[in-house]
Amino acid sequence: MNKTGLLLVVSGPSGAGKSTVLRHLIDHHSNIMFSVSATTRPPRPQEEHGVHYRFVSEEEFSELIMNDELLEYVNYAGNRYGTLKKPVFDSIKAGKVVVLDIEERGAFQIKSGISDCIMIYLAPSDMQEVEKRLRMRGTENEEHIAQRLSLAYAQREHIYSYDYYVCNDSIEEASRKLLCIIEAEQCKIARVPNIKEEANA
Amino acid sequence: MNKTGLLLVVSGPSGAGKSTVLRHLIDHHSNIMFSVSATTRPPRPQEEHGVHYRFVSEEEFSELIMNDELLEYVNYAGNRYGTLKKPVFDSIKAGKVVVLDIEERGAFQIKSGISDCIMIYLAPSDMQEVEKRLRMRGTENEEHIAQRLSLAYAQREHIYSYDYYVCNDSIEEASRKLLCIIEAEQCKIARVPNIKEEANA
Repeated sequence: MNKTGLLLVVSGPSGAGKSTVLRHLIDHHSNIMFSVSATTRPPRPQEEHGVHYRFVSEEEFSELIMNDELLEYVNYAGNRYGTLKKPVFDSIKAGKVVVLDIEERGAFQIKSGISDCIMIYLAPSDMQEVEKRLRMRGTENEEHIAQRLSLAYAQREHIYSYDYYVCNDSIEEASRKLLCIIEAEQCKIARVPNIKEEANA
Repeated sequence: MNKTGLLLVVSGPSGAGKSTVLRHLIDHHSNIMFSVSATTRPPRPQEEHGVHYRFVSEEEFSELIMNDELLEYVNYAGNRYGTLKKPVFDSIKAGKVVVLDIEERGAFQIKSGISDCIMIYLAPSDMQEVEKRLRMRGTENEEHIAQRLSLAYAQREHIYSYDYYVCNDSIEEASRKLLCIIEAEQCKIARVPNIKEEANA
């Protein structure tokens, strides 16, 4: 993989297996990394501050907004989530592929601000699978599960606002397709560094 | 790889190693195939009729044009080359990835007629390499080599009319990047079959 920095925005229904697929992708490629979001949601078991999220208080989150330190932020199921600007821009400049795993509204906020980000819809193999995964997670009550399922159905109406559609039939296949999308995007004429110099050489 | 038919138009300087890279790609993936062009050029040693080219007479070529059986045709270094419509369309409909290895003018004719074809510029690692390869081929006289080199330099000014830029640093790497481009294009929202039905399900 070459060193062209990219911003990958991956969204899709909660329970589609996004985290697992993206973790697989990132664990196998040192040039691809997560952006760590800020959130007011309490940590789930095994979640670490600074690794999975930057866990902040309501007051700290409001301060991030006021200081214009967020690329996007949303209120989701009673909690606030936001993407920190500086670490994302720094990493892209350093030639890294930064992956954002975010809810749809946040994803579209990013797209409207950074038009050359790559929008990927990660779809579950079927919606029954989504419901099963949400229940297996065991961290959400029935009301939240119903809310997430209803959102998942609504999100599918916006599929055409994404650039790519990857179905999570298997973790390896979905991860491989994401890698191909990254490599292909790095070959896009507009992204290849020094091509102008070469063209005029 | 899924079964979304695609048309890949690969162009770039003569001597950049296009044939070798594309042969490597096609030999390793049964769903990717060459389109066999028609030409009035005499066969080089080892070239087979119907495999490398459909070798036709001047009269037969004129007939193909008159019967509107060609997607594009060009006159290049005194010979005529053309892409046959029917086999290309039939293969794409059958879910195949059809690869056209053609000169730049032909490539742009294709693009103007089939806007969703994928235009790839296959670049040599450097121009010295191009000259070396042309001489090694041993099939062209000095005048033709000079003509091809001059064309190669001119072509680089049109790089921005392509979708992707792949540098032939090594056959395996270039072939792998082409494969990624194919896979990524098959994941593009507009190309995913039945996505509309799914979105409205």
